Amino acid sequence: MAETTPNHTQTVSGWAAFDASGEIKPFTFKRRENGADDVTVEIMYCGMCHSDLHTAKNEWGNSIYPLVPGHEITGIITKVGSNVTEFKVGDRAGIGFMSASYLECELCESHQENYCEQLQPTSNGVFWDGSITYGGYSKMIVADKRFVVRIPENLPLDSAAPLLCAGITVFSPMKDSNMLQSPGKKLGVVGLGGLGHVAVKFAKAFGLHVTVISTSPSKEKEAKERLGADSFVVSTNVKQMKMARKSLDFIIDTVSAKHSLGGLLELLTVNGTLVIVGAPDEPFELPSFPLIFGKRALKGTVIGGMKETQEMMDLCGKHNITCDVEVIKSDDINGAMSRLANNDVRYRFVIDIAERSSSL
Amino acid sequence: MAETTPNHTQTVSGWAAFDASGEIKPFTFKRRENGADDVTVEIMYCGMCHSDLHTAKNEWGNSIYPLVPGHEITGIITKVGSNVTEFKVGDRAGIGFMSASYLECELCESHQENYCEQLQPTSNGVFWDGSITYGGYSKMIVADKRFVVRIPENLPLDSAAPLLCAGITVFSPMKDSNMLQSPGKKLGVVGLGGLGHVAVKFAKAFGLHVTVISTSPSKEKEAKERLGADSFVVSTNVKQMKMARKSLDFIIDTVSAKHSLGGLLELLTVNGTLVIVGAPDEPFELPSFPLIFGKRALKGTVIGGMKETQEMMDLCGKHNITCDVEVIKSDDINGAMSRLANNDVRYRFVIDIAERSSSL
Repeated sequence: MAETTPNHTQTVSGWAAFDASGEIKPFTFKRRENGADDVTVEIMYCGMCHSDLHTAKNEWGNSIYPLVPGHEITGIITKVGSNVTEFKVGDRAGIGFMSASYLECELCESHQENYCEQLQPTSNGVFWDGSITYGGYSKMIVADKRFVVRIPENLPLDSAAPLLCAGITVFSPMKDSNMLQSPGKKLGVVGLGGLGHVAVKFAKAFGLHVTVISTSPSKEKEAKERLGADSFVVSTNVKQMKMARKSLDFIIDTVSAKHSLGGLLELLTVNGTLVIVGAPDEPFELPSFPLIFGKRALKGTVIGGMKETQEMMDLCGKHNITCDVEVIKSDDINGAMSRLANNDVRYRFVIDIAERSSSL
Repeated sequence: MAETTPNHTQTVSGWAAFDASGEIKPFTFKRRENGADDVTVEIMYCGMCHSDLHTAKNEWGNSIYPLVPGHEITGIITKVGSNVTEFKVGDRAGIGFMSASYLECELCESHQENYCEQLQPTSNGVFWDGSITYGGYSKMIVADKRFVVRIPENLPLDSAAPLLCAGITVFSPMKDSNMLQSPGKKLGVVGLGGLGHVAVKFAKAFGLHVTVISTSPSKEKEAKERLGADSFVVSTNVKQMKMARKSLDFIIDTVSAKHSLGGLLELLTVNGTLVIVGAPDEPFELPSFPLIFGKRALKGTVIGGMKETQEMMDLCGKHNITCDVEVIKSDDINGAMSRLANNDVRYRFVIDIAERSSSL
């Protein structure tokens, strides 16, 4: 569709999956002209989110090929439209999961575009003009200004890239559930991956006591020494889980595999809150007793609105928070995808799209 | 144990289960003397909660026989202790699920005794003096003043009795989740039984738009015409459920049978809240997608604190809210238990304990 949309005249080099094998190969395609509300970004880096793997392989059944993945995009603005006053050429910019929404609904107007019924993703979505959206595994992107954020000068563009999805996915519920406004309170972070490790960083920056909860005893040293977690609980260790009963005010659960929520709820104090940000294909098991007898709450959220994404990015600048990344060359995307499928990454792959010599 | 506790000197007639058959027979036992903080209540009525059935039959594995059920108790105060200034002889009083708690913990001090680790029930619990608690299927009870509420003069003692458990179980989360402070908002009530029908009454008294959600199409007429519900959705009717998608601000789920929460969550608007007050033996199925993509919250609560139980009772007096009950004689307890097991009651059995000629 994009190729036949009238003003899609700009030729762009990128990388795409062409079928459900998910193999990523070079792909040249067209993007729209920079419109009045648009900015054009020369892409420097793009993070590899686990959902890139799902869509490349059509695991959710909605993939449109050729599919250019990528929604953790950082780069430099090279062009701005006539209505754009928020950005100028040369600015460091970030683009995340969203490319378009209704804009005039109650949710968009209250800065909750991420829950808009007409939300369209940056990759594998349908833009306002009817074209299929191509993501950040590409040299350049044209984006509506309302879905672009500024990256603070002190944040490297490679390790800042995953903040656009992994970062905001944990920041939004942490802020919404008052975690970041509760220094000294106790937070459990379930799963120490792309999302979990950023949650630990936010929590420590905002003065929380952090317990990492993981199935992997081997992650204890890293959680404590590298990320500054205060405590570590192995979720399969019955004794440790029992010792930690009713000790946490909040939990953020980042695990995408099916699991029971009963044991986690038992870790919460009365009135405690468990936030789910992972999305297992199969339903969770939710026993009612730990929910009702502890007056606990379970909440689900997905990414965040643009206003809070900018807020998060500015706070990351202030507190010097970035993701721990492995930067790869575009030639290594398929290898990285394989490792990603095995959760073999600490903690996010980021593709060096521009292949300049030094980190920007 | 009660029989051997030194100051348990008062002989009381009641009705008890003696084994897991659950058959209820007359039982004479001892209660403690009225202590300085106690009030003695001549029991007029006692509601039959579904949990009476579970404990009579030892279905939760913790029953101590002989077991005197009953925690929806109303009656007249016949004695007050020297420290009691809140009540006087002749007052109309109610006693609910709780007989004792720690009193000095953070939860008790913040009027959340119902979540205290040392909470003891009115039936089948262990009182401070080590005696087993005998419930309201009996002619008289001695209760600590902190676990007694006043019943407004305009409420009949029979139809007010189930407010002590069924009523507060729905009132507490409705207030806590701001449902009662949101006139015009839309509430779904799942299950039209002992709890659900009171939830509808509270909601209508506080100006909410109420949709009853039930598996039984036959309940539509009753829900609308007798209870004043505004709308009715059959939960097994795919078309009706689809039509109601994203239409509700709150849901209160009173169903105690295992069910999936996915379809109910879909009925909520973004940021909507689903409160669980039923307690199925098996875990709920909780699909993550309707939770996270709608930023929905799921909360569990159990009964309520004493302060809010009194608040509820006073509001029931103000709005003339009582339960719809079938009053039975003590001879009919076993028959009522059988009907209760089949949910064949609209909506609560209440035992006429005192067997006076007219409703008090």
